[in-house]
Amino acid sequence: MSRPGNRRPECHKIDWHLPAISSSASAHSMNRDLFVLTYGALVAQLCKDYEKDEDVNNYLDKMGYGIGIRLVEDFLARSCVKKCHSYSEIADLIAQVAFKMYLGITPSVTRNESSRNEFSLILDKNPLVEFVEELPAGRSSLCYCNLLCGVIRGALEMIHLTADVTFLQDRLKGDKVTEIGITFLKKLEEKKCRRKK
Amino acid sequence: MSRPGNRRPECHKIDWHLPAISSSASAHSMNRDLFVLTYGALVAQLCKDYEKDEDVNNYLDKMGYGIGIRLVEDFLARSCVKKCHSYSEIADLIAQVAFKMYLGITPSVTRNESSRNEFSLILDKNPLVEFVEELPAGRSSLCYCNLLCGVIRGALEMIHLTADVTFLQDRLKGDKVTEIGITFLKKLEEKKCRRKK
Repeated sequence: MSRPGNRRPECHKIDWHLPAISSSASAHSMNRDLFVLTYGALVAQLCKDYEKDEDVNNYLDKMGYGIGIRLVEDFLARSCVKKCHSYSEIADLIAQVAFKMYLGITPSVTRNESSRNEFSLILDKNPLVEFVEELPAGRSSLCYCNLLCGVIRGALEMIHLTADVTFLQDRLKGDKVTEIGITFLKKLEEKKCRRKK
Repeated sequence: MSRPGNRRPECHKIDWHLPAISSSASAHSMNRDLFVLTYGALVAQLCKDYEKDEDVNNYLDKMGYGIGIRLVEDFLARSCVKKCHSYSEIADLIAQVAFKMYLGITPSVTRNESSRNEFSLILDKNPLVEFVEELPAGRSSLCYCNLLCGVIRGALEMIHLTADVTFLQDRLKGDKVTEIGITFLKKLEEKKCRRKK
């Protein structure tokens, strides 16, 4: 899916840097339990609205995408991000800064050794499912936390990166860990990239 | 609505105390922007689902109630609450500890001088509407943050207090401040109160 031929040097540059969280970030902190329970209410509502798990998953992803594109500017401001020079640094940024800031956890990052653009975030703990004992009855294909994939996808797109973001493993489905796979695809086409600069 | 004759001393006792937030609470902290945007997505979804503002308001309140009854136990554990001896102390607890913990703000509390059981929480800032410029078109009766009323109502019920909790003023509707009114009604009837002890 990656087409290096389409890339131009000015679009290539990834100008973000792994930061410390700014002091202003802490002024916006809250206990996450209200969020976790509100998220549960949202998923329950979507399960009422859509019969197919796939539709719920898509809708959560779409909602997340909308959130990601609004959240990223604020994130960059609060987190004092400067420069990242590789996909690997961006994956670390998502795990160590974004997840820490918004969910209070730090997933570990694993890399696909044979591919420069594939990463996994491994979540030992997932606060979003803290109050969830199991998937709702008849909802075995539900990706309960799919909003997160959409958020990551939307945020990346705003910094001119397209990516596939999906759950590869999910403890709620009986897997040993929860794993979010991120595959960086190509940069947004030059024209779009330039316009947004 | 208050019927003192139905009260028994053991149900009367309000055994909560204005606490300091425990150190474990901070381990669960997060930046609230993800919550605020997710809440916006939830309200938008309910506006899709229900034509009448009143139905959306009721549904938000109902969802909040379900969240409140689950949240309160955790809140009491984290906040190290000990004893409150009056409605006034409980109102302070909600404003100074619960709002601070879950939304990162501290509303001021005003009392109705002619009534021992009526209080208002005045929110100068309301993070839940941070990304909301105005109410959606044709939704002038929407109580956008009505989930909060339900949360307070549900949490109070779990400590054997019934209350009316409603928005009295709302900046989103052009009022100068946002005001949540809490009117404590009667204690839950003795039987229910005892069973839950």
